[in-house]
Amino acid sequence: MREIQAAKNNKIKALKKLHQRKYRNQSEDYLLEGYHLIEEAAKAHAEIKEIFLDKRGLRLWQEWVENHQFTYYLLSDEAMKALSEQPAPQGIIALVQKSSNFPSDFSGKWLLLDNVQDPGNVGTIVRTADAAGFDGIFLGQGTADEYSPKVLRSMQGSQFHLPIFSGDLTEVIAEFQKIDSKIYGTKLDPAAISYNEVQKNEDFVLILGNEGQGVAEDLLQLTDQNLYIPIYGKAESLNVGVAAGILMYALI
Amino acid sequence: MREIQAAKNNKIKALKKLHQRKYRNQSEDYLLEGYHLIEEAAKAHAEIKEIFLDKRGLRLWQEWVENHQFTYYLLSDEAMKALSEQPAPQGIIALVQKSSNFPSDFSGKWLLLDNVQDPGNVGTIVRTADAAGFDGIFLGQGTADEYSPKVLRSMQGSQFHLPIFSGDLTEVIAEFQKIDSKIYGTKLDPAAISYNEVQKNEDFVLILGNEGQGVAEDLLQLTDQNLYIPIYGKAESLNVGVAAGILMYALI
Repeated sequence: MREIQAAKNNKIKALKKLHQRKYRNQSEDYLLEGYHLIEEAAKAHAEIKEIFLDKRGLRLWQEWVENHQFTYYLLSDEAMKALSEQPAPQGIIALVQKSSNFPSDFSGKWLLLDNVQDPGNVGTIVRTADAAGFDGIFLGQGTADEYSPKVLRSMQGSQFHLPIFSGDLTEVIAEFQKIDSKIYGTKLDPAAISYNEVQKNEDFVLILGNEGQGVAEDLLQLTDQNLYIPIYGKAESLNVGVAAGILMYALI
Repeated sequence: MREIQAAKNNKIKALKKLHQRKYRNQSEDYLLEGYHLIEEAAKAHAEIKEIFLDKRGLRLWQEWVENHQFTYYLLSDEAMKALSEQPAPQGIIALVQKSSNFPSDFSGKWLLLDNVQDPGNVGTIVRTADAAGFDGIFLGQGTADEYSPKVLRSMQGSQFHLPIFSGDLTEVIAEFQKIDSKIYGTKLDPAAISYNEVQKNEDFVLILGNEGQGVAEDLLQLTDQNLYIPIYGKAESLNVGVAAGILMYALI
């Protein structure tokens, strides 16, 4: 165990950069905060490189950390406050390596997110996909980064229960077409059909889109069928997280 | 049109108190911010007592305000900033009277919220109930106040599309029982049945509960049937707004 006192310590300064997407992309590492999430990461055999504890964290989790033979650091309260994204840090942060491989199997139930920008929406959708027993998720361009602190918090550990990948959705759809997976887009459109008129399939892909604009037109051209959720009242639309839940549970 | 310059003007100070629930309860009035929401309120014939505009708001909406013969005030930028709840005020705020009557008809599809605390969840649920064509909503004890600024924002005007009442849910359920409405609670419990095994009914009530504890036990004793949403993956639970969407769309 090593100690870090100063909030402006070079290691702390380097780690703090991982709050920004561009540095996460350079280093292939990210920060995960809170015991519950770190425990889920360990269970899922994520590559935990280092653990940072403050005095309180050391008291609570030193034994757990040592049992797992993780490299760890004791941080002063100031150094923990500098590193943490939380107003009241829990006292434990892990440096974790991203898992960035490509799926070997595209069968089953998959969710594709096209340009879903709000981190809370992305997190809630991942959690719902986990609950609904989906096999995996692809995050397309413009979608909130799965390693951003807000997305990590709202996923509540579901990222360790089903695999999440990033990629160009046009290329990804081609992979699903190779195995004859049914591709469903979502669109409020006369050519679309109501979600509850769809026959169930073993292998399918559901594409959800941006909060304002929906799924991009070029992706909608690649689908087998586009679905909509009927609006019976006077609301203009549904929240994308709610729509995702209704559609995922109806299709499984 | 009268003008208010000082941010510490007595009228502004009195209005600002309406950001707090206890003063809203005393006065029976609330503040509604943003043109889109105020326009929805006017369309729904809500009692708009006064309108507050800054210079930008006056330029954009003076004609609309005068066409509706609303009493209005021109605020300095400082006074608007003091009154607004937004980091960047749009420039229009209305003082609106609460609609606090009791329903005359309990038939149809109703939603009861027991102790749903997060304002964003309550707003999203109201918006989904509107989309699903529900006939009304009761907010029980502990549920976020429908007139709080955060709930008002996330409802996106749906409160003007279906009636929202507050009340003691035990008493409210008794009213629904009088007309033989089917009462559904929600619970993860062996005695509960999966939501997709329920026969559809014309008249029913769905009760959703607190984010952590679910629906209170004494309310669950009053239901005809308690429902759950199966978890097929490893997530511990669903977000209450997502669960609400899945259940409402399955029951209608």
